[in-house]
Order: sequence, then C-alpha cells, then structure tokens
Amino acid sequence: MPNYSPKDFRALTWHDATPAFASGTDSPRAYLERCLETIALSEPVVQAWVVTNEAGAREAADASTARWKAGRPLSPIDGMPLGIKDLLETRDMPTQMGCKAYEGNFPKRDNAAVWALREAGAVVLGKTVTTELGGVHPGPTTNPFDATRTPGGSSSGSAAAIAARMVPAAIGTQVGGSIIRPASYCGNFALKPTQGGINRGERQATSMSTHGPHAGCIEDMWQVAIEIARRAGGDPGRMGLFGPATPPGPRKPMTLAVMEAEGWALMDEASKAAFETVIERIRATGVTVLRRGDNALVEAFERSLQGVQALTSAITGWENHWGIRNLIATSAPGSVSQRSQNVVAAAEKWTPEDYRAAILQREEIRARHAALAPLVDAIIAPASPGVAPLWTPDVPGQPLAKRPTGDAVYNTPSSALGAPVVTSPMTAIGGMPMGIQLIGQPHADAAMTAIARWMVNTIEPAVV
Amino acid sequence: MPNYSPKDFRALTWHDATPAFASGTDSPRAYLERCLETIALSEPVVQAWVVTNEAGAREAADASTARWKAGRPLSPIDGMPLGIKDLLETRDMPTQMGCKAYEGNFPKRDNAAVWALREAGAVVLGKTVTTELGGVHPGPTTNPFDATRTPGGSSSGSAAAIAARMVPAAIGTQVGGSIIRPASYCGNFALKPTQGGINRGERQATSMSTHGPHAGCIEDMWQVAIEIARRAGGDPGRMGLFGPATPPGPRKPMTLAVMEAEGWALMDEASKAAFETVIERIRATGVTVLRRGDNALVEAFERSLQGVQALTSAITGWENHWGIRNLIATSAPGSVSQRSQNVVAAAEKWTPEDYRAAILQREEIRARHAALAPLVDAIIAPASPGVAPLWTPDVPGQPLAKRPTGDAVYNTPSSALGAPVVTSPMTAIGGMPMGIQLIGQPHADAAMTAIARWMVNTIEPAVV
Repeated sequence: MPNYSPKDFRALTWHDATPAFASGTDSPRAYLERCLETIALSEPVVQAWVVTNEAGAREAADASTARWKAGRPLSPIDGMPLGIKDLLETRDMPTQMGCKAYEGNFPKRDNAAVWALREAGAVVLGKTVTTELGGVHPGPTTNPFDATRTPGGSSSGSAAAIAARMVPAAIGTQVGGSIIRPASYCGNFALKPTQGGINRGERQATSMSTHGPHAGCIEDMWQVAIEIARRAGGDPGRMGLFGPATPPGPRKPMTLAVMEAEGWALMDEASKAAFETVIERIRATGVTVLRRGDNALVEAFERSLQGVQALTSAITGWENHWGIRNLIATSAPGSVSQRSQNVVAAAEKWTPEDYRAAILQREEIRARHAALAPLVDAIIAPASPGVAPLWTPDVPGQPLAKRPTGDAVYNTPSSALGAPVVTSPMTAIGGMPMGIQLIGQPHADAAMTAIARWMVNTIEPAVV
Repeated sequence: MPNYSPKDFRALTWHDATPAFASGTDSPRAYLERCLETIALSEPVVQAWVVTNEAGAREAADASTARWKAGRPLSPIDGMPLGIKDLLETRDMPTQMGCKAYEGNFPKRDNAAVWALREAGAVVLGKTVTTELGGVHPGPTTNPFDATRTPGGSSSGSAAAIAARMVPAAIGTQVGGSIIRPASYCGNFALKPTQGGINRGERQATSMSTHGPHAGCIEDMWQVAIEIARRAGGDPGRMGLFGPATPPGPRKPMTLAVMEAEGWALMDEASKAAFETVIERIRATGVTVLRRGDNALVEAFERSLQGVQALTSAITGWENHWGIRNLIATSAPGSVSQRSQNVVAAAEKWTPEDYRAAILQREEIRARHAALAPLVDAIIAPASPGVAPLWTPDVPGQPLAKRPTGDAVYNTPSSALGAPVVTSPMTAIGGMPMGIQLIGQPHADAAMTAIARWMVNTIEPAVV
C-alpha cells in the first residue's frame, strides 16, 4: 500500500548541500555518486531514464568539485546533477522523444536550456522518459510511490526521478499538462513558467509549450529556472523570466481565488476534502479566498474555461499536424503510435480558419484572466483531479486506454492562459500525493514562487 | 556591361503555362526539362544551387503531368519546379545552411513550407545557396545580370535562380533583409509576409524571421504563398496569411507614404532619380504621396527608424547567440566562419535586460507604424539603397569585407515592424535592377500584392 505523506517525505535537495562543498566535507562528485547509487537501486522498477552519460557526468562533477574548492563556482547550481526530458536536444546523448521514428536520433547539439545549464556548471546526467513526442502515448516509467500507478505525463521520467530521490532537479516541458500533472502525481515542486519565459531553443513549434524545472524543494526549483533564463533568456521576441537571482522569500497573499474549472466534477470526495482542508487552513490565516459564486469576475473567468481542455488539445493538434504527418511519411510503418496517428488525423479536419477562431477564443479566456489581476494575488487549484490513476495497459484488440498518463484537466487552463504555475506537494490521499497549484498573471513567476513558499512554510499539508 | 531593363526582361512564369497542361500541348515534365536545360547552361557561372534532386523532380513532374491530364491537379501550382533555400529542411536532400558545421546534415524531414508545397503537388527541385546560417558570410552565388556583383543575401541562390530563369519560384527567408534585398538586386518579385504569416516549421528560433516566395511574376508569387499557408498555416499562435485563394487583382491606392529611413543618405544620385521617377509617375495618376516633411505622423515614424538597422541586428544576434555558440562548441575548429563568430561575440555582451529594452524599442516603432494605418494605404521605398554592389572578396590578412552581400538598410525597418512587403522590379540603373517595395500594416499581404499589381500594370518602370 502506498504510504506517501508530504509531512514525512524527504526529497533530495541541493541548495542545502553546497555549503559543505566549499568547506570540503562533501563534493559535487560525492553527491553525484550518491545519486548514481539511488538510481542503481530504484531504476529497475521506476524506469525514469532513457539513457545516462555517467562518464561525462563524473567528469563534469569533478570539474565542479575543483571550482567549489577554489571558491569559484559558476553559479549556485554548479555541480547539480540534472535529468533532461528526452524531447530536448543534448550534444552528448541521443534525443529519441519516446518515438520509434526518432530511434538513434543524435543531433549533437544542446537545447538552449541544456546549454545554459552547462554554462552554469550543472551536470547533465541523463535523458528522462517522455511520452511519445510529449503526447498521449506513454513510456515505461512507473510512479515511485506505487509502481501500479502512472507517474503522469508527458514529463514522466523527470517527475519520477525527483520522487525517487535520484536527482534534485530535472527539466520537463508542458503543452497541455505535462509538467504540473506529473509533478502533482509524484509529489514534486515544479514551475511551468510564463509562456516564453524560458527559451525553448529548437522546440518552438507549438504556441503553448514551456520548459520548466521539477525539483525536490522550491529553492532548487527557482534556482534552476533563473540560472537558465539568465543565460539563454526567454523565447525569441518575449520578455523572458522575471525574478530575483536567488529564490524569492515567502510572501503571504491577501486574496486567492479558487479555480474549479472542468476538473471539479471529476474529483472524488477524498481529493476534494484534502483540497478544501488546505483552503480552510489558508483562510484561517486571514487570507481571503474567493469562490466562483462570490464574485462576478471570478465567475466569468470560470465560465470562459468551459471547453478549454478540448480547445487546447485541438490547438496543439493543429500546430503539430504537419510535423507528425511528415514524420509518419518519412519513417518506417509503425514508427509512430496509433494514439499519435489518431491525434493527427483529428487535427487534419481543421483549416487555418478553425485555428484562427480557436486562437481568438483563447484570447478571450486570457482577457477574463487579466480581469482578475486587481482582485486576486493568485488562483489556487488542485494540480490534478486527484492522485495518479492506476496504470491501465493497452490490450490488443481492445480500444486504446483513454488517458494512460492521467487527466490534464487541471493544467490546460494555465496552458491556455500562458500563465505561470507553481505546484507544491500539499496533500496526500490514500498514501499518494496530489499537488496544489498557484496560477499567476503572466510574468508573476517569482510571485507564485513566493506565495508557494509561504504556503509550504505556514500551512499544514492535508493527509486524508 | 550589364543591360537589364524591367521593360525587356522576360521572367520565367508558371500561371500562364498551365492551360497548356490541361490541353496536353505542354506538361509539367516538359516544363521541368526546360528548367533543367537552363540550369545546365547558367549554373557554372551563377552557382545558385547547393544540390538538386533531378530524379525525384522528374518523378514528381510525371505524377503531376498525369494529374493535369486527368483534369485533377492538386492546386494551381501542381508541377511547379521550385528551389528551396538551404536553411529549410527537405526530406530528400541535405540541409547544410551554407555552414561547414552542417556539412552532410540530413535530417530527412520536410520543413512546414516544403511539406505544404509537396501537398500542393509542387516539384521540389533543389536547395538554393544561402549565406552561412542566413547571416553575413556569403556563399558562391553570383548575380545573373553581372557576375562581378553580388546577388544579395542571404537568399542568394533563390533570388539568382529567378533572375537566371532557372525556375519560376523559389523560397527565401528574411530576418534582416534576406528576401527583399536579393530580390531587389536580382529583379524578382518577392513577398516577405507578415511576421508569422507562413509557418516557419522547425525554424522558429528568431522573432523577425519569415519565409516567403521569390518569383518571376506577381501571380506566381502570391499563389505559392497562399498554397503554403492554406496547408501549413502560420506560425504557432499566429493568425497566418490572410488573402484570396488566387492572386488578388490590381488595386489603385489613394495615398502612399515614402519611407526614406536610414537608407536615403546612402543612395547614389542615379538610384534616387530612378526612385523619384517612379514616385512622380505614381503621383501623375492622382495618387497622393506623402513625404516625411508633409505630415507629423510620417515624420514621427521616420524618426523612430533612426538606428533600426543596428537594433534589428542586435536583437537577432542575441536570439541566435546560444545556438551559434553551441554550434561552435560542438563542431571542428573553423566550421563556423570568423564573420559569424564575430556576430556571436558581439551578442554575448548583452544580458536579457538589454534584450528586453530592445524589444520595447521595437514595440515603439510598431506603434508609430500602426499610427499610419488610417492615413496611408502603403509605404513605398526603394527595396535596396541602389543596385547590387560589386563583389568584394575577402583578402587574407585584411579586415573582412564589410557587407559582402550588400546593405539591408532598406529591409530592416519592415523586419522590425513584422510588416508585409512586396517588392517589384520597377527600375534599372546602369543596366542593373533595383526593386521598389510596398510595406503594409500587419496582415495586409494581399493588399500589398494588389497595389504592387496595379503599379506594375500602370506605371512605366524607370530606366536611368
């Protein structure tokens, strides 16, 4: 029986390890070796990694060890071992995107974030499992708190590697729910930055994708994000991630608004109870918490979210359709899963006019969200509609399992908004984690981090 | 001595050839063979092509021939032989980007535009020469009207292939001046679409790049653009190219505004005279033509353009810096030219804050341009500050030649604006072409095409 509790779980962290590097009682190399031991123990069941470069990591960790000893680390994350979701290019490892069509793909370049992490001295340990092309078809990763459950997707390996204490941080990506959902299922802290906040490098092909860190603590989460953004900037034409060079301190909000959205009807009673317990505890500190009935603008925002999951899926489907059709045409038969083929076939029913109409609908939702800015410091919501579901394998001859990596219903709103999200592990239901997310106005990444830090420091997690 | 004149030059065109395909007196295959003959004759001097796929092109042309015979062409450009700038991926040919670091690069995928062109039945004949990475370091292509002169860059091969009557259309790309400048130097029609109007596929890494057609006539130019956009749409999150499914008819403007900008001071007297002759002839038809002194908003727009060339170069330099630094780090020494290395070194003096300030300055220019919308139907300007300059090769031991593919000073304004541009071959100076460009508000691509068509039909070109 799973027995995760946010009160007891001790994640692997980095920021509190570095003082010992300077004094010489610990080192990045020794830290890395501990990570490798954990991986050797847990990986056979968790299957978070596609490939690791241990020799390269040891070399990078030794170089970092020397820098810390000399008192000249390149950044606070110099030496930090990291996992990189296998959608992002890495110059020393293949980039196979969980897709047979990319088997052996090895472009020998670094994605912008990977390049920036290396510039900051971080140790790129390996590539973490992604669902196929970051889409709906799952990889082999299991949930570290219960191997019969999904870790969530598409950043399955990044989220699981944090839960299994294999590394202190890992990079994920989100288009629909691919950072925040697996982080919720795996008890991670994670940041989905403001749209365009972190340079996506070669991965600019969809209008709602973002790259962001999963981490064991909020300090490491922020530090990884800002070290990338300070070096590689944001997406072309965007302002990039705003915020301090070190983790923002805790900040108590004045007013929060609960977002129920399409997910509320799908929550079981225990998950609702856990969420409501956290809300009550926040209220008890004197924070005003608005619900949809309380305020016309909150209600208008909620109404605009009706259908947002279908909208975001359709937008992303259209944006990807030429690329996936192309991939199918130029690969051996069976190199792209039936699930992904179904998605592209659905997208091909659209025309550019349908896409334009969808983008305009998305703009309306953004306007309703912007209208809340003077009213609330953040939106608060479950980060997933409950805990990680049991893994349902596909059975030959049967219809494909519908949502094998869980439901992104609580993530598509922020994706549509291009809004920053921080999720924190604040609840457990039946021994499995469910995150609580804070959603801000665009560029309020640091503010969401600060409020999350206040919440984590101040509010007792709900265990039901 | 060069003896180009827009009055005499007969470009290779497609739209007027297709009626004979249906009747059977001509065929896409025969058309292709004529192109291949022209290439065989001219290519040794012009050097427009990096690679061609003649076998694949013949196969595609035969399939098209059968479709036209059966009365079922896939589109009006079914069977059209096209050149693709060698920055865009093509599944059947390498993509080497004019850069040693990409020698042999062969990703076996089609760029979005290439994919769309094939869906429309077009014949992807080959890859055309680009300057290194679309930047400042030139390739081997010469100007078909005078081999001692540059064809312009970075879409050198695409522009030269049209001038040499090798193909009726070719795809170029522009970040600073890379479509409109070579089109001006080579007597092409060309469209730089509204930013985001044509899906750039895998090439989304800079905020001012666009993909667009070079062609021998305005009808083919439009048809190629709209066939791509109807299939692949615009960039992710953008509205895409608006306009009719067939070339818009001629439209006489009410008011035009001349844009002098930073280029005016660099124009020689003959080029100014040619431009002013065209302006006078337009005025003589009853069109109002405003100059910077005539109107406060035109003057304000002109003033905002001071420094725009340096601004656009710096923005693009920053956007590319991680990628080129990455490329240098992972390639053999000497695989990236000294010119490109200088550009990345300059960019690295910036921080994300500098980039933000530059993006805000660009927004101000856009606001000044938007203010002209109620006032003028289009901006009119030379498409380059004179004709193609003489080719100045680099001399070992000497400083690198400064602008080996000419000056983009008349192109960076529209790049900064994200505005659509159509250039038409309306002048000749000393037997060499100089284009006249029409710049519109974002999404006025079809309107610019219609005004250009009116201009070409109505106004006598200026030959000085």
